Amino acid sequence: MDLHRRLFAEWLGTAFLLAVVVGSGIMAERLSGGNTGVALMANALATGGGLIALILTFGGISGAHFNPAVTLAAALRRELSSRDASLYVLAQLAGAFCGVAAAHGMFGEALFFASQHVRTGPAQWWSEFIATFGLLAVIFGCSRSRPEAVPYAVASYIVGAYWFTASTSFANPAVTLARAASDTFAGIRPVDAPGFIVAQLVGAVTATLVFGWLLRDKAALSL
Amino acid sequence: MDLHRRLFAEWLGTAFLLAVVVGSGIMAERLSGGNTGVALMANALATGGGLIALILTFGGISGAHFNPAVTLAAALRRELSSRDASLYVLAQLAGAFCGVAAAHGMFGEALFFASQHVRTGPAQWWSEFIATFGLLAVIFGCSRSRPEAVPYAVASYIVGAYWFTASTSFANPAVTLARAASDTFAGIRPVDAPGFIVAQLVGAVTATLVFGWLLRDKAALSL
Amino acid sequence: MDLHRRLFAEWLGTAFLLAVVVGSGIMAERLSGGNTGVALMANALATGGGLIALILTFGGISGAHFNPAVTLAAALRRELSSRDASLYVLAQLAGAFCGVAAAHGMFGEALFFASQHVRTGPAQWWSEFIATFGLLAVIFGCSRSRPEAVPYAVASYIVGAYWFTASTSFANPAVTLARAASDTFAGIRPVDAPGFIVAQLVGAVTATLVFGWLLRDKAALSL
Amino acid sequence: MDLHRRLFAEWLGTAFLLAVVVGSGIMAERLSGGNTGVALMANALATGGGLIALILTFGGISGAHFNPAVTLAAALRRELSSRDASLYVLAQLAGAFCGVAAAHGMFGEALFFASQHVRTGPAQWWSEFIATFGLLAVIFGCSRSRPEAVPYAVASYIVGAYWFTASTSFANPAVTLARAASDTFAGIRPVDAPGFIVAQLVGAVTATLVFGWLLRDKAALSL
Repeated sequence: MDLHRRLFAEWLGTAFLLAVVVGSGIMAERLSGGNTGVALMANALATGGGLIALILTFGGISGAHFNPAVTLAAALRRELSSRDASLYVLAQLAGAFCGVAAAHGMFGEALFFASQHVRTGPAQWWSEFIATFGLLAVIFGCSRSRPEAVPYAVASYIVGAYWFTASTSFANPAVTLARAASDTFAGIRPVDAPGFIVAQLVGAVTATLVFGWLLRDKAALSL
Repeated sequence: MDLHRRLFAEWLGTAFLLAVVVGSGIMAERLSGGNTGVALMANALATGGGLIALILTFGGISGAHFNPAVTLAAALRRELSSRDASLYVLAQLAGAFCGVAAAHGMFGEALFFASQHVRTGPAQWWSEFIATFGLLAVIFGCSRSRPEAVPYAVASYIVGAYWFTASTSFANPAVTLARAASDTFAGIRPVDAPGFIVAQLVGAVTATLVFGWLLRDKAALSL
Repeated sequence: MDLHRRLFAEWLGTAFLLAVVVGSGIMAERLSGGNTGVALMANALATGGGLIALILTFGGISGAHFNPAVTLAAALRRELSSRDASLYVLAQLAGAFCGVAAAHGMFGEALFFASQHVRTGPAQWWSEFIATFGLLAVIFGCSRSRPEAVPYAVASYIVGAYWFTASTSFANPAVTLARAASDTFAGIRPVDAPGFIVAQLVGAVTATLVFGWLLRDKAALSL
Repeated sequence: MDLHRRLFAEWLGTAFLLAVVVGSGIMAERLSGGNTGVALMANALATGGGLIALILTFGGISGAHFNPAVTLAAALRRELSSRDASLYVLAQLAGAFCGVAAAHGMFGEALFFASQHVRTGPAQWWSEFIATFGLLAVIFGCSRSRPEAVPYAVASYIVGAYWFTASTSFANPAVTLARAASDTFAGIRPVDAPGFIVAQLVGAVTATLVFGWLLRDKAALSL
């Protein structure tokens, strides 16, 4: 598939992913009558459903990264050139903000408005490290032995990670930045975004190294 | 498979789809003690479960469209003749109203009664455009690279779309018309149905054009 | 596989199915703080999870009927002799009551105690007809074109049917009789069981005839 | 795959499993506003999602036991030497405690603190016997006829078993010991752990014998 189609797929897929995450968060908060457990369950199920559909839809075109941390890992493993990886990340960032605006439009909100949702401190960063390390672990392990099952593995992992991490598992720098522009259920204060992104990138690099060794992966060993 | 069997399958499958959507909406509202979040979660899970089963059951017979927007896209791509497509839509419409009546019968309601549920305005129409664009995107993308996974992709998408769109994602003109005949959880005022249907058809045509280009699809390029 | 192993599998699988249905009903009612919507969602998810596991586990041994209505359809289609079908039904009935007793033991209840849960009237019978017709439709349609997906199709259907039918979809005569011996969330008054069972058997025979025609199935046409 | 990589996979996978079980339990209890039904539903869905992902990720490396009862069954069937099985169990135990500590770190709790959650008595032990017997039954039956579906079968079973057993189905001695070190939603008093573990091991051995006969399995018959 030629590069501009792959970039379009990353843009559109990431836009849909953010529309799902932010839109279902708004709907969940509005409908759940103050029970945050019900709201997060709806948000998690919607995100999981969306991820299965989006990875199955765009996986054959661009690989369905939708996530700069995943693209970074692919570049570290020489599966993507630095130039292509940079363009992937730009497409993901553009898509993420378009998706937030699309969700806000559906729910009658302003296109963008900075979040005031505080998410910071070591426990949150540790959560994002674990969340992103685990996401990459799932992608590496499952791609190796059961590539056809990756969409289900990733979506199932994220449903779990919404609940088992204290940060509800952003695990994605593009998602983190775009959610900073949404003062809704899924938001994060802009000032808290850098801490999340650093933890995510450290998690992604660590998983790349550990699974390079674990899976005896020559591409990774040459890192 | 001969045409009358395929039409029968579209009729029966669409009837079951509406019975699932409307019936589970009634049950959900009755049981959820006023927590609409719990009710929509039940409605979404039931619809997702029903869709997996129905697409697996009827996919091998008629293609399991159950949706005039999907049939329109197939006709635009010359996968179905205009005549067959028209008959498909008639079978879907007949099935949709039979399914609503079947659900009302199960819950002791009148067979049909016009909905008073207001669903209108640009945010709702934008929601239906997004919902139907996304549904067709999932069908096109997944059919191309993972045809065996389409039932799971479509059902997962709809579970997500119940939550991430402000309209709870009707995404189907036959479903929209039939739900106008049900003054229950899943209903829509008859006067609001045309706005939904226009948005759905625009979304379907847009997705057909975009994915025709994205997937380098000759059938679509000749459009 | 020899007959006594197949009968053992039907006995054990049906016992587990009833333990799942009745046990999760008790747990759901105890924990859901009076919100029946939450309770039925837990009951439905547990039943769906159990069904996927049990059909995958026992499908290769006995076909994983666990249901006299399914066994009747198989006998009508000459896939099972009358004698084997009768023994299947006996094994299912024995398993169903053992499963109820096992569940009651886990939750510290008496082994059996007659239900006082009223479930009767035309709307309930119509629900059971639809529920069982649909179950057999899913089994026939999916077995034909996607046999490997039957466990997922059946479980997904039942999750939906717990919600879209007014009776919560018993759809199984052995389950109906055994649930009459449990005065818990999943129970049914013994006096109401025959109405359910007649509706289920009529639904099963109707589906066998309709899908025999729809799938051009010679075995069924010779009926 | 060499033994130290397999042991690393058992360690890391079991750590993630416990992080999922304990972390999602903490999150669920905090968010569900006192509705234990909502909390257990979130805990079950997160665990199911995590299990699908973890078994798909590590299955190709170590077999993804994550459970001394599963490793015991494999050793009884001569699929694993006694020495390798012992090392598997040590890796699982180390992983389980690391996972609890990781979860506690994410939620700002002390690394370990003894549970005061009472779980004892014949009904609870009977629950753990059933839970573990069923888990092994699913693994044996599904591995034989549908090995590629084992991750889905096991995860679906556990989602069901959280609800249909009165003990919420620990079904795993390493999980039991590590959850004794967490005074949270998922905890168990240290003094109650031995009763659970005995019931689990009896369930595992019983399932190994019964399914050895049922599946005409020569390895098991030579037991």
